[in-house]
Amino acid sequence: MRLKNVKGANEIIVKGKYYVDNPIEHKGSWNKYFNNDNPIYIEIGMGKGDFIINNAIRYPDINFIGIEKYDSVIAKACLKVEEELPNLRLVRGDAYEIEKMFDHEISHIYLNFSDPWPKKRHHLRRLSSPIFLEKYDSIFVGDKVIEMRTDNAPLYQYSLVSFSEYGYTLKRVSFDLHKEEIPEVTTEYEDKFSKDDLPIYYVLAEKDCH
Amino acid sequence: MRLKNVKGANEIIVKGKYYVDNPIEHKGSWNKYFNNDNPIYIEIGMGKGDFIINNAIRYPDINFIGIEKYDSVIAKACLKVEEELPNLRLVRGDAYEIEKMFDHEISHIYLNFSDPWPKKRHHLRRLSSPIFLEKYDSIFVGDKVIEMRTDNAPLYQYSLVSFSEYGYTLKRVSFDLHKEEIPEVTTEYEDKFSKDDLPIYYVLAEKDCH
Repeated sequence: MRLKNVKGANEIIVKGKYYVDNPIEHKGSWNKYFNNDNPIYIEIGMGKGDFIINNAIRYPDINFIGIEKYDSVIAKACLKVEEELPNLRLVRGDAYEIEKMFDHEISHIYLNFSDPWPKKRHHLRRLSSPIFLEKYDSIFVGDKVIEMRTDNAPLYQYSLVSFSEYGYTLKRVSFDLHKEEIPEVTTEYEDKFSKDDLPIYYVLAEKDCH
Repeated sequence: MRLKNVKGANEIIVKGKYYVDNPIEHKGSWNKYFNNDNPIYIEIGMGKGDFIINNAIRYPDINFIGIEKYDSVIAKACLKVEEELPNLRLVRGDAYEIEKMFDHEISHIYLNFSDPWPKKRHHLRRLSSPIFLEKYDSIFVGDKVIEMRTDNAPLYQYSLVSFSEYGYTLKRVSFDLHKEEIPEVTTEYEDKFSKDDLPIYYVLAEKDCH
């Protein structure tokens, strides 16, 4: 994620009606906060938010929470939303602290174009490493579902093995998602890579709650 | 596998000292036949045999059985072996009848450049389909290990999901094996594709016997 300064980022965020200032307060009670029992899907590292916002528009019966750690990026996401979307929330937060925000209430995690951390000694920083899979265990409710998109082959290969070794079943893999289908909802990165004819790697991993 | 007629193929096979005429006879007693307790590795669809023969040369403490359904191809493999290799056997057989040849005595299965059966309606004919994984269950002893190499991305994607859904863990995946390492033992196909700079897809899948 390349960061550009957005003037008054902090002010925009605070004013944004979808922005949740203190997500830790809602740990364990997000459904109460959304005022419904619909499943909650999160995107860790939502970037400028295209993917999570468009999902919220398209699927009103699912609650979506976009998480991003950089102010200036969240500000851009906040500025985008014009619609009335009671099923969308945007949160500033770090993946390392995800279990402080949620407690067995998430149904689905999106990892889109995450930082590949290419150096081997940094592999545990990848969002698909066992460090994070263990954190996700404590936020998932019911069957665990992770959906990953990336343009980075080494990160993708690493993730397939990591998911599998952690007990996830790979339900679908694609080495060129856009050749197989035109997805209904895309990320900014996806649009860019797809335009340049670069392949998007995709995996849907699931783990039974039993 | 492109087939060329090898004149007198049948005669060459029968004379080949590594050729086992009636493998069904040895079902359940292959270790007795090899006259040792070493693990037995098989390659289903060995083609002209480079891979299995070179493995047998390199690893004398493992018994190797190459299986191939076409006479003319086995004949070529038989003609190649000059060394004294007590740990090598070549067998004519069909993957569909694999459980007639072995009974809980195989430690490792190689699937190298198998027929991709590209049409969706033929997917159960692929050697990594659940039809075959069930057959393999009855020939494996101890932990189940399958190693696959292919140049065919759709077959590879299918196999990753099929292995995973059948309970195998993906221990290693590579989308370009020869960029990651120079393998000690290669197949004829591998040599060809590698020379043409085409990627070799690789997966090592394991399933605990517990």
